Amino acid sequence: MNIDMIRAANTRLEGHVRRTPLLNSSFLDDIAGRRVWVKPECLQHTGSFKFRGGWSALSALDDETRARGVIAFSSGNHAQGVALAAKLHGVPAVIVMPSDSPKLKIDNTRAYGAEVVLYDRATESREEIGADLSKARGLTLIKPFDEPQVIAGQGTCGLEIAAQAAAQGIEKADVLVCCGGGGLTSGIALALEADAPGLRVRPVEPEGFDDVARSLRSGRIEQNPRTSGNICDAIISRQPGDITFPIMQRLVGPALLISEDEALQAMGHAFNRLKVVAEPGGAAALAAALFRKDQIEGENVIVTLSGGNVDPDMFARALGTLA
Amino acid sequence: MNIDMIRAANTRLEGHVRRTPLLNSSFLDDIAGRRVWVKPECLQHTGSFKFRGGWSALSALDDETRARGVIAFSSGNHAQGVALAAKLHGVPAVIVMPSDSPKLKIDNTRAYGAEVVLYDRATESREEIGADLSKARGLTLIKPFDEPQVIAGQGTCGLEIAAQAAAQGIEKADVLVCCGGGGLTSGIALALEADAPGLRVRPVEPEGFDDVARSLRSGRIEQNPRTSGNICDAIISRQPGDITFPIMQRLVGPALLISEDEALQAMGHAFNRLKVVAEPGGAAALAAALFRKDQIEGENVIVTLSGGNVDPDMFARALGTLA
Repeated sequence: MNIDMIRAANTRLEGHVRRTPLLNSSFLDDIAGRRVWVKPECLQHTGSFKFRGGWSALSALDDETRARGVIAFSSGNHAQGVALAAKLHGVPAVIVMPSDSPKLKIDNTRAYGAEVVLYDRATESREEIGADLSKARGLTLIKPFDEPQVIAGQGTCGLEIAAQAAAQGIEKADVLVCCGGGGLTSGIALALEADAPGLRVRPVEPEGFDDVARSLRSGRIEQNPRTSGNICDAIISRQPGDITFPIMQRLVGPALLISEDEALQAMGHAFNRLKVVAEPGGAAALAAALFRKDQIEGENVIVTLSGGNVDPDMFARALGTLA
Repeated sequence: MNIDMIRAANTRLEGHVRRTPLLNSSFLDDIAGRRVWVKPECLQHTGSFKFRGGWSALSALDDETRARGVIAFSSGNHAQGVALAAKLHGVPAVIVMPSDSPKLKIDNTRAYGAEVVLYDRATESREEIGADLSKARGLTLIKPFDEPQVIAGQGTCGLEIAAQAAAQGIEKADVLVCCGGGGLTSGIALALEADAPGLRVRPVEPEGFDDVARSLRSGRIEQNPRTSGNICDAIISRQPGDITFPIMQRLVGPALLISEDEALQAMGHAFNRLKVVAEPGGAAALAAALFRKDQIEGENVIVTLSGGNVDPDMFARALGTLA
């Protein structure tokens, strides 16, 4: 896993990925006590950065392998990213989802052209179902984060941040990244190491789901005791990956933690001041910039707003924080 | 008023305006029955395209005139666009607003550095107040739409649309523009005439406030009987301008009309599928693309999403249309 893979992914993504802008607002600066720069990956295809990794992984396969199709386990942003990337490559995608997934997520994944295979969480193993399908149909598994070509794809977001920061004259800043398994975090960290060494990545996690924060402190991979029960579900994984963790260990600064209420407030500010839609997990880094400012250094802070796939009810809760 | 003024404005805006992307979603395409391309000017500084015209007008003044400051009558997007443009130029801005304007709008305009002068709609004339202030302090009036340098600024949005359409291989399409007094509409029309003659502008208005539609049909400037009482307030003016109307008459196709409910639904779709925040008037063109498709020609349609300055309560109404 290295910067050359990210640059190669960037070439493959050209003309397919959306190059997202870098947004700012003096109102957010006032809250944060420094200039805040927001990379809105909610504007990416499928509403999250995951399309970058999906496209990167699909486009890295040889033609014959890719033609047989791909498979992913996910009910969330990774599913949609892989599904659309497969559709645009004209190859089959199978997404294995729990049968109790929200209907809208199932419908959306199907609308992106994927075959959805449902399984019963209580009685069936998604790994077994996936292994059987892969074997029978020759599908390639696209893991959500611990996969070099996925990390390379997410890292293209870091290349853009490096160029956009340079255009704003920002040479030194913390770059806060919404962090689950560490695919986006490690990809951006590698990109910045190469192109903007004065920018330092810092993972942001929900309180109580701080596996990366603890892993960075202890120096070994730590697990979350649970992986559900927080509105920032999009950035909660069991543990950092075997590939992503060593990269994070080498390159990133201390993690920051935010509360659910802070995530909702950050969603409200993103609505009000940037006019973009953030999901709770996607607003985590902005929340840290706005509400944990004593833990951040420098005159500028850059944050990823990693996704915007949120249902209207949850968004209404975020609007309620503005009253 | 000509294309050279738009190109000159574009040069002056470089590095100051936000170059907004062109967004799309297969889900919107399915509703519209053709490919839909959205120019999200809600992502522009101050949350609407009005910053373009404000910057263009301010930057076109000679140094001495500009240093004395500018004045505008507006409680809306134009006020914020002028206020921020003046702040960034380091010159005073006076915004004359009705004393019953929402507190948030007054606060925001002040936060952009402007001096807000309130007047009583019932007993005072804003024109008199403005004339007195202009005379006493040498302020230059920046009109909201019927002013060549303002039109030139809004036209820069059209230059971007022309380039972005070409990049997508779109040579022929209707370009639906949310239309009040016609500043954005006529500016884009002039830009497209020069850079993308296969693209045809079509104004979009709220039902019952169809002054431009009627003016285009009759060949002379028609008025709206009233200028309030519709949620699309941002795009309601008394009548098209003396400068904007002849340009529209020469260059644009028939206007389209949309209902308030269609505007709210379009806001919901913009939230759900593009992850951007639209105000009702800003969603008018998208509403026409989605719900008045029989009146549109071609395989592609381009729409401006002209602003996103909407309060949480109104946005919650739009979210309600998704249920």
